[in-house]
Amino acid sequence: MAKKKRKANQEEQVTTTAVALDERDQRTLERIQALADHVIQAAKARKDPYIDIPARTLSNVYFNKKKRFIEMGKAKNRRHLFNLAQAKSYMQTMLVASGCKRLIEQGKTTSIRGLFYLLKHTIEGTKEETFATQEECDPIIEDVEVTLNALREELHVYATNRGAMVGEITIVDSGDEIDCTRMGSGGYAIPSIVEPNVIQFVKCDAKFVLHVEKDTVWRRFNEDKFWKKHKCILTHGMGQPPRGVRRLLHRLHYELGLPIYCLLDNDPWGYYIYSVIKQGSINLAYESQRMAIPEARFLGLRSFDFERCGLSESVTIALTEADRKRAKQIMEYPWFKHKKAWQDEIKKLLDNGFKLEVEALISKDISYVTEVYAPQRLRDGDWLD
Amino acid sequence: MAKKKRKANQEEQVTTTAVALDERDQRTLERIQALADHVIQAAKARKDPYIDIPARTLSNVYFNKKKRFIEMGKAKNRRHLFNLAQAKSYMQTMLVASGCKRLIEQGKTTSIRGLFYLLKHTIEGTKEETFATQEECDPIIEDVEVTLNALREELHVYATNRGAMVGEITIVDSGDEIDCTRMGSGGYAIPSIVEPNVIQFVKCDAKFVLHVEKDTVWRRFNEDKFWKKHKCILTHGMGQPPRGVRRLLHRLHYELGLPIYCLLDNDPWGYYIYSVIKQGSINLAYESQRMAIPEARFLGLRSFDFERCGLSESVTIALTEADRKRAKQIMEYPWFKHKKAWQDEIKKLLDNGFKLEVEALISKDISYVTEVYAPQRLRDGDWLD
Repeated sequence: MAKKKRKANQEEQVTTTAVALDERDQRTLERIQALADHVIQAAKARKDPYIDIPARTLSNVYFNKKKRFIEMGKAKNRRHLFNLAQAKSYMQTMLVASGCKRLIEQGKTTSIRGLFYLLKHTIEGTKEETFATQEECDPIIEDVEVTLNALREELHVYATNRGAMVGEITIVDSGDEIDCTRMGSGGYAIPSIVEPNVIQFVKCDAKFVLHVEKDTVWRRFNEDKFWKKHKCILTHGMGQPPRGVRRLLHRLHYELGLPIYCLLDNDPWGYYIYSVIKQGSINLAYESQRMAIPEARFLGLRSFDFERCGLSESVTIALTEADRKRAKQIMEYPWFKHKKAWQDEIKKLLDNGFKLEVEALISKDISYVTEVYAPQRLRDGDWLD
Repeated sequence: MAKKKRKANQEEQVTTTAVALDERDQRTLERIQALADHVIQAAKARKDPYIDIPARTLSNVYFNKKKRFIEMGKAKNRRHLFNLAQAKSYMQTMLVASGCKRLIEQGKTTSIRGLFYLLKHTIEGTKEETFATQEECDPIIEDVEVTLNALREELHVYATNRGAMVGEITIVDSGDEIDCTRMGSGGYAIPSIVEPNVIQFVKCDAKFVLHVEKDTVWRRFNEDKFWKKHKCILTHGMGQPPRGVRRLLHRLHYELGLPIYCLLDNDPWGYYIYSVIKQGSINLAYESQRMAIPEARFLGLRSFDFERCGLSESVTIALTEADRKRAKQIMEYPWFKHKKAWQDEIKKLLDNGFKLEVEALISKDISYVTEVYAPQRLRDGDWLD
């Protein structure tokens, strides 16, 4: 029950202190500053201010064969202030950039939802809202990312965090040392911002990373202390791994030289998750360089595991029409198209007419996946890439 | 690429070792044993075996005014083996019980998905499946829980884990000591099984628990080290908190005497989340005793925060017809119906015609919620219960 009431004017003030900026934040701020400087220069020269925004369209995305990941092309769209069709989105772009500037200067981070609320207001003297909905704000945030060539995380904006980690690594997260061999059954919750200014690697005895699709499978591996027996790090991303998890895998691979093995369901969704970890995604092509791991390995499940592991019909799930269509699309991905092993894998899925979840291995034994399946594949070097 | 192939018959065997059982597991096993003994007794006496399963129907659920939570009544449904309409579900019930026995004896846990795969098979000599789908298995798991009066967690079956914790507490999880003041930005991922055999409380300097709805809000509180300034524990449950989080809050409240404050969105969903934490849910009424916290407090957001905090129209979201309907239903809940403060709260929501997310407070300042809103409410004892 409300015991006392206080009026709004009695409210305490929020203290806003400027914080010392690290090199990365400094660099991001400079880029935002440059964006603003351009407006002033244009105004002084009596020219129309504009922003050139790299095009985030399918036609401007291609597979870089040398780097082996999806990249953005060089196409840009020019957004003018003095153009009725573009004025609003021009101003929204500048507004998002100024919001990020404020976050960085205060040394704070927020969610995309938070940034939306931070910037949402009715423009004085009008009935016009800066943003009507979150859906209007999100693509503008992506525009700013790609224009400034700064990761969302560098703009101090985060997505939902999902995913957890345990295993033979000790990290420092925001000044706290976290020994991932001592994280119990729950594990370390992987945050959405895992950049080096937040997370540093202190000590690593792991020889590889095993990334699994689901938390329930992860739990089986953790409970069986797989990471201890096999000297590794265990991660999951609750399905399609969010940015934080992908970025952390990327850092573990490139900074610590750890191979990344993926254990996913034998279905088109599993292939797609692997594809995104490996090559990047079309939507976030501009982040591939800091996200994609072309050397990531697909440990399973494989379409021929049904026979190989002697599974029963009972544990299969019939492919839907959508599954078949999706599988055929994935066969055509440039990074799978010329690999016989992948073509065989996906053809076999279609021939089988069914998909298999990793949990289906439980029908052999609760710990079959941790004690037989994964160790055999790793020992035999039996994976796809 | 597949480098070597091994045949199924060359596969290593899974080693299954019996484990030492603790008191709790022993007790659960005895209950499963009693269920099986009943069948043998019936057979010996040449009688039809049956199981009496407490009815999980709305009509068998009521609000216990003394205990102040939702409880199940005494109605039971008898399930016979020798009854064509019941034989299948009878056998499924025994099958689930035997699966749980196997899990407990092996000292392992699995997900409801895992248990499904563990038990799914074609019955010999027929084309009949033990379970066709997960949806067929789930209610049987609940039947077994309620029949044995054992939490799902005690049957070694877990749900998805969501939610995280940081703050002034040190716990032991599966033998690992976890200091929640040193969990960085990610926090400790709350597992789905938090029973005393898995998690023990070692040291607690917290004076209360602040439970927030979303991870994004939780992150703001963690980043501002709210738990340090206010000597508390911070948890979130990614929306409607899963069993693990509810059970952990329950244990923190009853074992450590910590008050539980909930900071949720100002909408019917927020009210409902609070209601479930406080009184239990209809679906899981049989777990109320170990889940519900009738003393839990609703810290906000409140419907009159729009005026009190001086928020702008821009950050409001119009109520939908479904919202209005839901709000009116919640007003009629027995635990809200006779509380003027709650009636006023929900009426005001309807009068406002809009809802507010906790993130809307960001429009005042990024840290308004952690530096002004929550501290004021706590200091003034200004909450609903």
